[in-house]
Amino acid sequence: MTKTVTAKAHTNIALVKYWGKKDANLMLPQNGSISLTLDHFYTQTSVSFDQPGATDQIYFDDQLMPAEKADRIIKFLDLVRAQSGLTATATVKTWNHVPTSAGLASSASGFAALAGAASRASGLNLDDRALSRLARRGSGSATRSIFGGFVEWHAGHDDASSYAEPLQDPVDWDIQMIAVVLKATQKPISSTAGMARVVATSPYYPAWVTTANQDLVRMRQAIADRDFNQLGQIAETNAMRMHALNLSAEPAFNYFNADTLTAIQTVENLRADGINCYYTLDAGPNVKIICQSHDTTAIKTALQAHFKAEQLIVAQPGPGMTITENN
Amino acid sequence: MTKTVTAKAHTNIALVKYWGKKDANLMLPQNGSISLTLDHFYTQTSVSFDQPGATDQIYFDDQLMPAEKADRIIKFLDLVRAQSGLTATATVKTWNHVPTSAGLASSASGFAALAGAASRASGLNLDDRALSRLARRGSGSATRSIFGGFVEWHAGHDDASSYAEPLQDPVDWDIQMIAVVLKATQKPISSTAGMARVVATSPYYPAWVTTANQDLVRMRQAIADRDFNQLGQIAETNAMRMHALNLSAEPAFNYFNADTLTAIQTVENLRADGINCYYTLDAGPNVKIICQSHDTTAIKTALQAHFKAEQLIVAQPGPGMTITENN
Repeated sequence: MTKTVTAKAHTNIALVKYWGKKDANLMLPQNGSISLTLDHFYTQTSVSFDQPGATDQIYFDDQLMPAEKADRIIKFLDLVRAQSGLTATATVKTWNHVPTSAGLASSASGFAALAGAASRASGLNLDDRALSRLARRGSGSATRSIFGGFVEWHAGHDDASSYAEPLQDPVDWDIQMIAVVLKATQKPISSTAGMARVVATSPYYPAWVTTANQDLVRMRQAIADRDFNQLGQIAETNAMRMHALNLSAEPAFNYFNADTLTAIQTVENLRADGINCYYTLDAGPNVKIICQSHDTTAIKTALQAHFKAEQLIVAQPGPGMTITENN
Repeated sequence: MTKTVTAKAHTNIALVKYWGKKDANLMLPQNGSISLTLDHFYTQTSVSFDQPGATDQIYFDDQLMPAEKADRIIKFLDLVRAQSGLTATATVKTWNHVPTSAGLASSASGFAALAGAASRASGLNLDDRALSRLARRGSGSATRSIFGGFVEWHAGHDDASSYAEPLQDPVDWDIQMIAVVLKATQKPISSTAGMARVVATSPYYPAWVTTANQDLVRMRQAIADRDFNQLGQIAETNAMRMHALNLSAEPAFNYFNADTLTAIQTVENLRADGINCYYTLDAGPNVKIICQSHDTTAIKTALQAHFKAEQLIVAQPGPGMTITENN
């Protein structure tokens, strides 16, 4: 008898970014990364291997996905079948509480939840490290979304050595992010294609790997020290060095839009006014502002000169993945 | 008896950019650069060393500049006095036909014209190479504005070896630029301060120097071959790698505004539609589109979906500096 398993995983925002693979099949990154899991954005996914038919049935927000769009998910289920020895096809139902493809890392929570639900539904009983390795095969940033709080993904050199682990969970000090949700539009170039172009064409790429490795050391220390300003400065500089890679690719590309520039300028103006806050951006236009709770009102007020209140989402450090068997 | 000398110099747009000094006093650049002088934007400057008073009198568009704003010009006049042995102070009248401080290189034409007029008025009779070395001391890009057409500034290793010379003048093939003049606002950071921050803090800077030197070789060949597409591709990639340096500095900065992104996207869309055109940007929001005359109408039409006709200025290759004695 088949069972249905539901997993809930939260998204994470990298403070030291992952940007470039050294093995596209195994999804090994060129450098390690450190993130903060957020409570507000998550994916909930149910899986049962109960299909008599030849194809997996993938429902996304209660809509059946056409097979060509579900390709990446079906390939991931094939990995789970290979590990578990199961041959049945699956019913997958996913509800995404993250704006998709807009730099809010929906694939991070998405593939983490899928790894959790599909592995358990297939009869596998993986520990957290093995879950993070499995999630990695779906999407690099998903490696980190198995865990809550501050998380480090070790780059590793093979499948076994490339996994995430928590650095600090729960987070027992005041740090949060305000997500400025700009547009749930499609990206100019997917993160997969973008980072591949960067690795292939940017003359700055080797220096990025070196500087990111230095940032990992400093970021671990800032987290251990609970040093908000040090953390924010490292994160902001690291993020912009990632985006600098995109400008330096051939052909160049960027994920900025007009509102992105406005949000960045607002953060710089706030900082000039003595309010400590920092920005980070991923493969999309949205800006995430790293800040502390006592500055929330001042920051939201400044942002509301340009953005609507409903575009501003305050997110606290979030928990690791949970898995529930429904039968 | 003193004489009044007038010089007229045109601005230039770098196709391989100058971005970073290796000697701030001598104004020696970290890498060589190649530019195209444009006919549309120029500075006209008259100088006479006729002041009995203690201070130079600088008029900018017929307004007397306060001494603290004229500091950079007075320092340049001190250089001319040192070379010529003159001790008199000067009257300088400048008319600038370039939007200032908005990335349209007003300092290039400005210091070239000042070098030409002040040196001759002081009694010096410098050849073009010596004029380009003198102009360099005022502003790096002014080194190139002594000459017309395509110009290369050799980085050099001391005052004598860092000069510009023409690569191709007149330009006997179809190449032009459309300047999209966005805002004549002040820069977020001056090019002098911006490039100094980049050299001091960007981990990508050594790779920039390497890639710029490679671009010089390829750009010389593209000009010699009159290969429009090759020239445009090298220029666009080189420009964005310069701007990538700014994002990678600590703290990061950029010269983009919302309209900059729109103009870049318009060029990318035009190219996707089969119209060969390329963008370049300097230390300001304005976008310069490298194109050919048969595409002018199509490009202007596309731009006019976002910009007013008067913001679009078509510029052809321009001439070298001219010097006239008025007495």
